Amino acid sequence: MGSDEPSREDFSTWRTLPTRWGDEDVYGHINNVVYYAYFDTAVNGWLMDALGTDIRDLPALGVVAETGCRFLRQLRFPDVVEAGIGVERLGRSSITYRIGLFAAGTAEAAAVGRFVHVYVDRESRAVVPVPDQVRAALEALG
Amino acid sequence: MGSDEPSREDFSTWRTLPTRWGDEDVYGHINNVVYYAYFDTAVNGWLMDALGTDIRDLPALGVVAETGCRFLRQLRFPDVVEAGIGVERLGRSSITYRIGLFAAGTAEAAAVGRFVHVYVDRESRAVVPVPDQVRAALEALG
Amino acid sequence: MGSDEPSREDFSTWRTLPTRWGDEDVYGHINNVVYYAYFDTAVNGWLMDALGTDIRDLPALGVVAETGCRFLRQLRFPDVVEAGIGVERLGRSSITYRIGLFAAGTAEAAAVGRFVHVYVDRESRAVVPVPDQVRAALEALG
Amino acid sequence: MGSDEPSREDFSTWRTLPTRWGDEDVYGHINNVVYYAYFDTAVNGWLMDALGTDIRDLPALGVVAETGCRFLRQLRFPDVVEAGIGVERLGRSSITYRIGLFAAGTAEAAAVGRFVHVYVDRESRAVVPVPDQVRAALEALG
Repeated sequence: MGSDEPSREDFSTWRTLPTRWGDEDVYGHINNVVYYAYFDTAVNGWLMDALGTDIRDLPALGVVAETGCRFLRQLRFPDVVEAGIGVERLGRSSITYRIGLFAAGTAEAAAVGRFVHVYVDRESRAVVPVPDQVRAALEALG
Repeated sequence: MGSDEPSREDFSTWRTLPTRWGDEDVYGHINNVVYYAYFDTAVNGWLMDALGTDIRDLPALGVVAETGCRFLRQLRFPDVVEAGIGVERLGRSSITYRIGLFAAGTAEAAAVGRFVHVYVDRESRAVVPVPDQVRAALEALG
Repeated sequence: MGSDEPSREDFSTWRTLPTRWGDEDVYGHINNVVYYAYFDTAVNGWLMDALGTDIRDLPALGVVAETGCRFLRQLRFPDVVEAGIGVERLGRSSITYRIGLFAAGTAEAAAVGRFVHVYVDRESRAVVPVPDQVRAALEALG
Repeated sequence: MGSDEPSREDFSTWRTLPTRWGDEDVYGHINNVVYYAYFDTAVNGWLMDALGTDIRDLPALGVVAETGCRFLRQLRFPDVVEAGIGVERLGRSSITYRIGLFAAGTAEAAAVGRFVHVYVDRESRAVVPVPDQVRAALEALG
């Protein structure tokens, strides 16, 4: 798995996500499910900051079509997670983000994830193009 | 704490709530936070069944104003939780539910909780009377 | 995505997983993160039933190395989720499960997932072979 | 409820807790259950910082015996929650914390909670006195 592990240099946009006590499971590490809450929060939080608007009020919503994660190293409470966000692919209606999770102060990734948003009309939920303001924000993401 | 522990005879309405793997925390028991997810799910699930309608579409919403829980005995995955639901107090705009959680097959309660719904207008979020159809359902709850 | 959507016939082993009120997010459907809690609970719950033992007490633990999910149709509270479980690949130290999630009573899958357990020594966390009793249970899974 | 609402002046010790996307429920506000995750994380995180040690490795564990919360104002993602922590009562074996949650930059509390830890022996789970180092940390809490 080594060669395709993400490094911090792969990412220029970062979000900080503190762990919570209950994120740990009986095995004494952050439960695998919770990593996806980090992804969800990193992407949507970044979008709201970058657009300067509440994405929940836009006519088009980004709904999650596919996600995946490889778990490379344990995280533990009270680790602070730093999530690097990049764009792997920008399609007509979908965006595939690549996300690297690192415990603060560590060089090696705890996890690497994919997170695919598909844009749909808020009312009809029909697939629509990625909104222009989201495209503009993605350019800044680099 | 003994004398005011709930018994199964205190409740006539029941909901079944399986635990999940991640409900356990590092101490190897269901985390305290999750008990409130059981309360929330038991009350709202019962309401939807009793009213035969989707409570999220009603003009008045029950929002949670206060909750509390005493933790009496550990629960563990894969326990199935049985939640007994009763009404402690019915006000003009609020309902105070009393909830007892029991591991399936056990006589002694794992927890006892209070759960207060206040009804608000879906749009303005101003406090409104408990809807008639909810009142009718509560009668059946006994 | 159509042709590789799972069907109910693809699975012979099933677990039943009720949704919870808080599983829904602001978009009024089960949040993507929660699907992984269904996977986690389905696999570990099945393992505990199939082995007739508490997997948390075994000398080798199954830790999650990789997961993924494609989201095909919305789920909503109070849907009951039926999770079909199959084995995609059995390695020396790892098991790749394939999981299909279906709302009860529906023929079309809500999601399809991959879930990879790697077995590690409980104390050292070094990778170890899949325990014999787990292998035996997998045969029954078909 | 007005007169016993907490104010920021009631607390001298603070923890910062960012909300997560999935903390919101279908009603578009942070779900009531999640407030208890804030309490749990605030108290245990503070304890680990104050003691300078991993509380999970101590011979006595603080397990949660009772909690409660009054919900005063909505919180929304991406609010950052500031949790003020105080001690309401220090007993021989138990500590009752009082916690006020405030959205960053607001004067009025979003919620006020009680959180009771009882100390138990890590192995036998029998009730034991509050450890001396925890008592010392509480003095600093004021």
